[in-house]
Amino acid sequence: MSASSAEGASEAFPVPGVTVGAVEAGIRYANRLDLVALRFDEGTTAAGVFTRNAFCAAPVIVAREHLAACSSMPRLLLINTGNANAGTGESGVVAARRSCEEAATLLGLSAHEVLPFSTGVIGEDLPLDPLLAALPALFSGLSPERWQRAAQGIMTTDTRPKAASQRFSANGRDYVLSGMAKGAGMLRPDMATMLAFLATDAPVLPAVLDNLLRRAVEMSFHRITVDGDTSTNDAVLLAATGASGGPTCDDPETDLGRALGEALEALCLELAQGLVRDGEGASKFVEIDVRGGGDETECLDVAFTVAHSPLVKTALFAGDPNWGRLLAAIGRAGLSDLDVNGVRILINDALIAEHGSRAASYDESEVARLMSGSDLRVTIELGRGAADTKVWTSDFSYDYVKINAEYRS
Amino acid sequence: MSASSAEGASEAFPVPGVTVGAVEAGIRYANRLDLVALRFDEGTTAAGVFTRNAFCAAPVIVAREHLAACSSMPRLLLINTGNANAGTGESGVVAARRSCEEAATLLGLSAHEVLPFSTGVIGEDLPLDPLLAALPALFSGLSPERWQRAAQGIMTTDTRPKAASQRFSANGRDYVLSGMAKGAGMLRPDMATMLAFLATDAPVLPAVLDNLLRRAVEMSFHRITVDGDTSTNDAVLLAATGASGGPTCDDPETDLGRALGEALEALCLELAQGLVRDGEGASKFVEIDVRGGGDETECLDVAFTVAHSPLVKTALFAGDPNWGRLLAAIGRAGLSDLDVNGVRILINDALIAEHGSRAASYDESEVARLMSGSDLRVTIELGRGAADTKVWTSDFSYDYVKINAEYRS
Repeated sequence: MSASSAEGASEAFPVPGVTVGAVEAGIRYANRLDLVALRFDEGTTAAGVFTRNAFCAAPVIVAREHLAACSSMPRLLLINTGNANAGTGESGVVAARRSCEEAATLLGLSAHEVLPFSTGVIGEDLPLDPLLAALPALFSGLSPERWQRAAQGIMTTDTRPKAASQRFSANGRDYVLSGMAKGAGMLRPDMATMLAFLATDAPVLPAVLDNLLRRAVEMSFHRITVDGDTSTNDAVLLAATGASGGPTCDDPETDLGRALGEALEALCLELAQGLVRDGEGASKFVEIDVRGGGDETECLDVAFTVAHSPLVKTALFAGDPNWGRLLAAIGRAGLSDLDVNGVRILINDALIAEHGSRAASYDESEVARLMSGSDLRVTIELGRGAADTKVWTSDFSYDYVKINAEYRS
Repeated sequence: MSASSAEGASEAFPVPGVTVGAVEAGIRYANRLDLVALRFDEGTTAAGVFTRNAFCAAPVIVAREHLAACSSMPRLLLINTGNANAGTGESGVVAARRSCEEAATLLGLSAHEVLPFSTGVIGEDLPLDPLLAALPALFSGLSPERWQRAAQGIMTTDTRPKAASQRFSANGRDYVLSGMAKGAGMLRPDMATMLAFLATDAPVLPAVLDNLLRRAVEMSFHRITVDGDTSTNDAVLLAATGASGGPTCDDPETDLGRALGEALEALCLELAQGLVRDGEGASKFVEIDVRGGGDETECLDVAFTVAHSPLVKTALFAGDPNWGRLLAAIGRAGLSDLDVNGVRILINDALIAEHGSRAASYDESEVARLMSGSDLRVTIELGRGAADTKVWTSDFSYDYVKINAEYRS
């Protein structure tokens, strides 16, 4: 059961064992929430998934280190916007460690129980003074209810906060899972870091959290794309406070493991799709549904080649059912022995191309009408096997693209 | 010795054994050269490199077939613009064959001695009637001198014709190599086909031409990129008339083979770079020079990841020495065990990043001044080995991009 829609007002339920808050620290801008904390009760377990980029930012290095050093039982997540502390070399790592130490001292924790996260401008030193000065006010304002304010506090170029919840049950007991995320503005790439923070009151071993989180991220955050670039700061963190009581989940295949896994996939998907919808300049939300592949890898190769093609994305913006661009993108996705005559392409439910050409039933004006909506589904049937997969993306809009999109011959 | 500069007026010398010409056939637009032929004397050999896209256009299918059927000894290249004859299914193949048959009949050739090439709008049937009606005028106007007119005739969104020549010598004999190419407008992707037609008067076996052409294309046309998409119609054709006389080159490693190979690489590079410079909306010509890789493959992976990154390309447009975006692109290029601290980045000759951070010597205003020029070189030193490679690309400009480029924090 979802507590919010991707389009509607964002809302997340409190999670027993978690308090959250946000303050204006003035890290880069005045009058803007830019410092956020999630505090966990003792005994909370956690798992994290971090950027695959070889250049990872200082807070990613430190968060990974601390998560290992605290045996996956962190007590505080400390998130700042305005400065990514990326490309800052060794002094950036020192600054990230220092912020954890100061926060830990104020709360009576060990420094390695604090995980730092940063998003914002790259290559400038993290302004530690305003950050540290704001910590007392941040911690005194923590409350179970402030998920919405915290979701607003982690925003950079996002136009709206993204927070949502799922409730789930197992063995006669009810649990809650809440989360917040920030995106991915296509046109503001220095700040296009993806961060997500999720928490449940279920009691779960760290290894199980890790397993469930990786699966959920694979099916959600790793299947969205705006412009194909990867941030140096991307991170998703899942915590389990155990405040619900009951037996601890020690296997993903138990009833509780499965129920949490399902809730997690649903929540991650909702948040991930929310990031795509809120991409800067995105005028359309597009599902790329690839069916009939030989295996999942080739489905993903086709889906991402199509989703990243500037030519396809500009055609989507223009509402132009340009099946020629779709065929060309599929054709360069690297599938061996692709029989182009076996490929079919549908937009929403209208068949637009088959047998390497425009479909006989294709009615351009009808399809153009379908494409005027803000939500589109492009279905690509490869006719090679039984594997299916979906990814989600946005169009390319704006004037650059307007020129491109209006051009047809 | 090159007969033209990439920036200056385009010029190509006649090649004994070749006549060329162009007419206005009205295939899509009136008052526009849109039908071109290159006619070769008997005994001419040839080799071709065609698009790697699984969806290849009808003329590509037919040109490949005919090149094999004539034992790599074609007599005529027939090129139309205005219609790509792509995504046209079996009827497109029939139309391409028909154009070759009609041309062959008029000239007393076999149909398989004619190779067809098309570029233009995708997914519409090739208008055969105007094409066939224009053939007599096209053939009666063929002349050794009309390379410039023919180079203009194969243009679509190109802003200027691209033709050039090389002269070379071997064993006391002089030879000529001439070529023409059309591009690759970033913003007009339906017509972004790359076509190039090259001819020499040297006598060369087809297998040697094939070997030399593949090497030259690999180092030139395969190392340029505008937006990463691949056309369904790309083709490069090299012909050798043998009109120079002298012994036939039967091995790439002979003096003549080496001299032709060098001239071919130089000509292909000049034409390829000319395509990048003439990319629609390209305001900068950018060389990405990757040095110190473990092997050439990883150099190319880094070079193309950087060259395709929308974030890097918009920063280049803005003249913004945004080393953070460059580091992030290098970091996601998929190199195993990349030591980010060993990477150095230079723009022209100025060191901008090392040790995972901004270089100590970096002077942003000086580098921004360097970047205001129209030609840039980005050098990436990986510090992993002895392999080097270069690719060439353009920036992303226009308003879409202006918004992106002006955004820094």
